[in-house]
Amino acid sequence: MSKKWLRSPLEEKFRAKVFRYLTTIVENPKDSKTAVFDIIQCADWVNIIALNELDELILVRQYRAGSDSVTLETAAGAINYLEDPLAAAKRELCEETAYTSKEWISLGTVEVNPAIMTNRCFFFLAKKCIKDGTLNFDEMEDVETVIYSKEEVRKFIKSGEISHSLSSLALFKYFSYVDESALQA
Amino acid sequence: MSKKWLRSPLEEKFRAKVFRYLTTIVENPKDSKTAVFDIIQCADWVNIIALNELDELILVRQYRAGSDSVTLETAAGAINYLEDPLAAAKRELCEETAYTSKEWISLGTVEVNPAIMTNRCFFFLAKKCIKDGTLNFDEMEDVETVIYSKEEVRKFIKSGEISHSLSSLALFKYFSYVDESALQA
Repeated sequence: MSKKWLRSPLEEKFRAKVFRYLTTIVENPKDSKTAVFDIIQCADWVNIIALNELDELILVRQYRAGSDSVTLETAAGAINYLEDPLAAAKRELCEETAYTSKEWISLGTVEVNPAIMTNRCFFFLAKKCIKDGTLNFDEMEDVETVIYSKEEVRKFIKSGEISHSLSSLALFKYFSYVDESALQA
Repeated sequence: MSKKWLRSPLEEKFRAKVFRYLTTIVENPKDSKTAVFDIIQCADWVNIIALNELDELILVRQYRAGSDSVTLETAAGAINYLEDPLAAAKRELCEETAYTSKEWISLGTVEVNPAIMTNRCFFFLAKKCIKDGTLNFDEMEDVETVIYSKEEVRKFIKSGEISHSLSSLALFKYFSYVDESALQA
């Protein structure tokens, strides 16, 4: 049975804009060998499945510098320091799309990449959203809101039109939630 | 309609062990404003859904320094320079679990995080795996192989016992593949 290893206190090596690069010395209890491991520390993130009153999906299109392309994604963002994940989800959805909802449901949490990252991503479903909020883009953010049916979105995951791993996971969690609700109904 | 922005050539700021930290200057075509964006460059990754001859799932337990915990995950790893993704998947599965398969199926590709990362993750399904290979752990790698039924694994995703975002996505892709195959059968 795998055991927890010993990890030395994290040491900051570099502070970028959206992450800190840290290292730690870990010791394998099996043979007491040690090595330096990289750690990327980001804020926790939220990812939102937003439905309008017709149960269509509210998605966002925007330029992404990592892939150097315009992507189709679920609304998402970083949780501010000490901010509640649900409050962050409500804030990000409104800032990016102007949609708000009174019906929020947690779809669970994941670790983004426990091998090298410390942060988690919280998934939320926002039902019966209405467009009564105010857009509030971050500096250098320019987000277009687009609406698609569930069937169209399933096709976009298959075709790769939706390619962000966390958007895809959010949507699979939503489809799984819908299918289970249908079974229980 | 969102347009592609202008991105300057990537500039290396720091070279860690498992990633390079780069920056780029991007220009929003709407107002010609510019800003420096962070980019994390990793190798592409593979993630493997491996089934034994009873259609049970072959998973791995190991210590992960990012979360400082022992995790339950799908077999996975980095693609070597110029290595074919399928070859990397076969290599990683064998190195981590000693299982091999003659039936490999692509379950698609995602961008890990197009906002700040450049790399992709390739998902593969390996059917009817048999334990006839040789374990070959990387330095400081100590991986335990564990076998679970599909029903147990569904519960582990729900409970958070399986918490890695890419393992969860791999498993949802597999469940979706199985359900579609069932519909077509």
